[in-house]
Amino acid sequence: MKEDKKTNSISNWTCPLPKQDYDQIILGHGSGGSLTQKLLDGGVFSLFDNPWLNEQEDGAVVQMRGDIAISTDSFVVSPIFFPGGNIGDLAVHGTVNDIAMCGAVPKFLTLSFILEEGLPMEEFQKVLMTIKEAADNADVDIVTGDTKVVEKGKGDKIFINTTGIGFMHPRAALHYKNVKPGDAIIVSGYIARHGIAVLSVREGLEFEAPVLSDTAALNHMVLDIIEDFGDDIRFLRDPTRGGIASTTNELAQKTRLGVALDQTSLPVDDVVEGACEMLGLDPLYVANEGIFVAVVDQENADAIVHRLKSHVLGKDAKIIGHITEEHPGQVICKSLIGGRRVVQMLPGEQLPRIC
Amino acid sequence: MKEDKKTNSISNWTCPLPKQDYDQIILGHGSGGSLTQKLLDGGVFSLFDNPWLNEQEDGAVVQMRGDIAISTDSFVVSPIFFPGGNIGDLAVHGTVNDIAMCGAVPKFLTLSFILEEGLPMEEFQKVLMTIKEAADNADVDIVTGDTKVVEKGKGDKIFINTTGIGFMHPRAALHYKNVKPGDAIIVSGYIARHGIAVLSVREGLEFEAPVLSDTAALNHMVLDIIEDFGDDIRFLRDPTRGGIASTTNELAQKTRLGVALDQTSLPVDDVVEGACEMLGLDPLYVANEGIFVAVVDQENADAIVHRLKSHVLGKDAKIIGHITEEHPGQVICKSLIGGRRVVQMLPGEQLPRIC
Repeated sequence: MKEDKKTNSISNWTCPLPKQDYDQIILGHGSGGSLTQKLLDGGVFSLFDNPWLNEQEDGAVVQMRGDIAISTDSFVVSPIFFPGGNIGDLAVHGTVNDIAMCGAVPKFLTLSFILEEGLPMEEFQKVLMTIKEAADNADVDIVTGDTKVVEKGKGDKIFINTTGIGFMHPRAALHYKNVKPGDAIIVSGYIARHGIAVLSVREGLEFEAPVLSDTAALNHMVLDIIEDFGDDIRFLRDPTRGGIASTTNELAQKTRLGVALDQTSLPVDDVVEGACEMLGLDPLYVANEGIFVAVVDQENADAIVHRLKSHVLGKDAKIIGHITEEHPGQVICKSLIGGRRVVQMLPGEQLPRIC
Repeated sequence: MKEDKKTNSISNWTCPLPKQDYDQIILGHGSGGSLTQKLLDGGVFSLFDNPWLNEQEDGAVVQMRGDIAISTDSFVVSPIFFPGGNIGDLAVHGTVNDIAMCGAVPKFLTLSFILEEGLPMEEFQKVLMTIKEAADNADVDIVTGDTKVVEKGKGDKIFINTTGIGFMHPRAALHYKNVKPGDAIIVSGYIARHGIAVLSVREGLEFEAPVLSDTAALNHMVLDIIEDFGDDIRFLRDPTRGGIASTTNELAQKTRLGVALDQTSLPVDDVVEGACEMLGLDPLYVANEGIFVAVVDQENADAIVHRLKSHVLGKDAKIIGHITEEHPGQVICKSLIGGRRVVQMLPGEQLPRIC
C-alpha cells in the first residue's frame, strides 16, 4: 500500500475492502435499494462494525444519561485529498473537536454522504478507510448514516455531514460568561497549517518543505486538562474557518472584554510563515483543524501549558495573549516591533471550501 | 402573501424575515465570518429562537435520560419546491419520522445547509420559514447547525442535513425480531403521492387534479398508537425511497418470513393511479414522505386502524396484508384479479433525488 504523503494522492493505493461491482459511484448507489445495500455491505457495515450500526435500522438507539452535547457540521473541502488528510478524517475530527470544545466526551457520530455520480469507487473507499481510522483514534462509534447520490455536475465528488453526541464532563464549566479580565489565552499548537496545506494543492504550489494539514482529534488532550484543571478552563474553541482572528473576535464580542494577542508568541512554522508571506495571507486568519484556543485562569496557565506539552498534539502549546478590560469587544495584536494593530473579523471568505 | 399551491412556487411571496444585504447567496455567506453571522442573525437565530440555539456555540448542550434514538438524513430533492412542500419541511419530516419509527419521541434537530452560490435569497428564506413551521408542528427544537456555501455548479441550490435525537417511549418494543407469522401489515394512508408530486414538476406534467406530496410529521400519530397498544406494535417504517416494495422486502429479508400483500387493499388515489399508469410506474415502488407501514398483532389490528383514523394523517389507514411463514424472505402481492406476483426490491434508482 503506497501513498504519496506529500499530496496524499491515492495512486498505487490498494484498497483492502472487497471489490465493488462498479468502479464509479452511479445514481443507483443512492437509491435506497439493493445497489445501496451492496455498497454499504461491501464497506461501511463491515468496517464500522458496532452493535448500533449493525442493526441497520434508519436510526440507532443508544444509552445516555445527563447532559449531552450535540454538534453538526457539513464538510465540502476541495480538493477532497490534501497533504496530511482528506475529507474523511476532517469530517470526523471537525465534529469530535466541536463536541470536545463543549467540554464533553464524544461518543457517537452519524455519517451522511452526498456523493457525485462518477466519483471513483477507490476514492470513496479510501475516504471510508480514513473515517474508520479517525473514529477509532478518537474513540467514537459511527452509529447510523445516510447515502445520497446526485447527478454529475450537481455536487463535487463528496460532501460529508457528521453529527456528534457526547456526554458532558462533570468538571467542565465552559462558558464565555466565565471569562475574566486577566485570564490567559493559550493555543495548543502551530497555527495556519490546514489552510496552507489545502491551498498548496489547490494552487499547485511547492514550498521548500511540504505543509501538512494539522487535522486531528483533540478530545483526549482537551478532556485531560478539564479533568485536571476543572473550572480554571473557562472557554475552548477550535479556530477553523476564519482562524485565530475569527475565534478571538467572537470571544471579544460575546464577553464584551478585550483580547490582547502578542504576535511574538504566536507559534507559526517557518514554512507556513513563508507561504503566508508569498500568498499575502495573515496566518491569524488561516484555518486550523487540529489546534484549540483556551481561555484559562492566569495563575494556572503555565501548568496547563505544561500539561498540554505532555501530548504529541500539544507539544507546541503556548500562551499567546490575555483577556483585558481595555478595548472591549476588540482584538488587539502587539506586533514584533512593538506596534499595536486591531485584528478585525473578516466579513467574507478568505479561502472558500477549506473544510 | 400569495403562494401558488399547485406548484408551490414562491413568485409574489413576501418574506416576513428582515431584508438581507444580498439578494443571492454568495461564497462569503459560508465563510464563518461576519457575513455568515449576518445571514444567520437575519433569519435563523430569530426564527428558531430557543435556549440551546441562542447560545450560538458550535454545539448545544441538552438534558437527556435513558435510551435515546438518533437518526440522520441528507436531503437533495430536486426541484427544491414541489407541490405540497419543499426541501425544508421534507428535511424536518424525514428525520422526525425516522426517530418516530424507532419508537422514540423526537426532541432535538440539528440543521446543516450546503448552499450553492447564486441561490436566490428569498428561496433560502422561504425554506427557512417552512423548516420553522414544520419543526413547530412536530414539536422539535433546532438546537445547532452549520452553513456551507459551494461555488455555482458545484452543488444544486440547497442540500440539507438534519440529524434528530429523541427519547425512547417506555412502551415501545419495536424490532423486526418481534414480528410473527399472522401479524397484520397496516399502511397509514394513501401511497405514492410524494414521488408523483415531485415527478410532476420535474417533468412538467399536468394531471386532472394536482397531486400534492404527502410530506408530514408522523410522530404524534405514531406515539399515540405506541402509548395505547405497546408491544402489539412490532415494527414501524416509513416507506420513503423505493416505496412500500423496498420496505416490505427489507422486512421479509430481515425476519426471514414472508410478506403477503393484497393489491385490492392498497390505498391508491385515482389521480395517482392514473399518473402511475401513464408513467409506467408501479405505485408500490414510488416514494412516500407522510405515511408509515406498521406490523401489528393481528387481534388488535382493527383497533389500531380505528385509532389511526382519529388522526387527520391516518384517516385512510388500512390493513394491506400479513406476515406468513410461506415464501420466507419474499414479498408476494395478490393482484386485483386474484393472481400472485413477486414484488422484488429494485436494484437501483427509479426516480433519483426524490428526497
